[in-house]
Amino acid sequence: MNKAQLVVISGPSGAGKGTVCKQLLQEMKNLKLSISATTREPRIGEVDGVNYHFTSKYDFEKQIPADSFFEYAKVYDNYYGTPKQYVIEEIEKGNNVLLEIDIQGALQVKDKYPEGVFIFILPPSMKELKNRIVGRGTETKEAIEKRFNSALKEISYVKQYDYCVVNDEVNEAVASIKSIIIAEQCKVKQDIKNIILKFKEELSC
Amino acid sequence: MNKAQLVVISGPSGAGKGTVCKQLLQEMKNLKLSISATTREPRIGEVDGVNYHFTSKYDFEKQIPADSFFEYAKVYDNYYGTPKQYVIEEIEKGNNVLLEIDIQGALQVKDKYPEGVFIFILPPSMKELKNRIVGRGTETKEAIEKRFNSALKEISYVKQYDYCVVNDEVNEAVASIKSIIIAEQCKVKQDIKNIILKFKEELSC
Repeated sequence: MNKAQLVVISGPSGAGKGTVCKQLLQEMKNLKLSISATTREPRIGEVDGVNYHFTSKYDFEKQIPADSFFEYAKVYDNYYGTPKQYVIEEIEKGNNVLLEIDIQGALQVKDKYPEGVFIFILPPSMKELKNRIVGRGTETKEAIEKRFNSALKEISYVKQYDYCVVNDEVNEAVASIKSIIIAEQCKVKQDIKNIILKFKEELSC
Repeated sequence: MNKAQLVVISGPSGAGKGTVCKQLLQEMKNLKLSISATTREPRIGEVDGVNYHFTSKYDFEKQIPADSFFEYAKVYDNYYGTPKQYVIEEIEKGNNVLLEIDIQGALQVKDKYPEGVFIFILPPSMKELKNRIVGRGTETKEAIEKRFNSALKEISYVKQYDYCVVNDEVNEAVASIKSIIIAEQCKVKQDIKNIILKFKEELSC
């Protein structure tokens, strides 16, 4: 059995990442959700450490050069980032960690932690995506073309991922991701030397 | 969804490959068993095309230079081999094909068909393996040493495989292999260009 994994769920908007991740967390006991840090103000009902780790701008900016984030981004005037420490601690405890993130963020994570498992979720139906692109029919051909090209560009990032799951049916998509996590733990990796060593020890009379 | 796969189940003797494969075939509808060809005489109760494809020596030897086998071996005076045609036909139909085979055979298959999924099964318990090695206690230290080294050598082949499944509990081993087959079909491979092309076609207004 290999060590636990960082499982990165990503894909274009509208793919249903959120629904898939929610169900996955309910079904897999040893899967923990990575919680982002942010400098924006908590909204009503949001709990520190549950929805986000709410941090001051001063603290966040201090952690960037300390390489404390797998990825971070500044959106308008607020920072958002994935703290490394929690992920690494949980993996060391033997828990898999789930990170739901957009494509840009996932590619940053891959740069810093290529041993993660990168899963691309494709939208449930092309019809929906098409409707979103074509819009209400009141737009210019140029605007539609632009959205079309941007959707295509997003989808083409799939080739930088390890796995691709089409979210046609949530239960099936969740089952596929569970299979991917189990299979990854059966992969023969460099640390196979440990298996052989263990056998050697156990077998020595 | 990727195309169907050749799933090669292999490992040292005593790992319980047979039991695992039998249950796997019962549980997975689109998994077909690859049947070996042999030149040995059918035993009572053996059915041609079920237990083996019984072939004449003349036919078998003609097929070797025609590259009709993924692997073959001559044991005493009889040939045994894995015919390519059935495997390729079933994969083209969208069925996964299961090949249960010893380590030497699996490595030959890997040479000819590296795109297969190679799974190494480890024995259910080290105790059993140890008992087999130590034997009844009536043997010389040299004989035990020889068997110990041969078991170790067999197990060290694991590093040439894609996955390793410990057969502690048959149901769990079968579940892991099922997960591996599903995960393999979600892998992002070279033919990802087809996904993008398909999207392009479906999306074009």
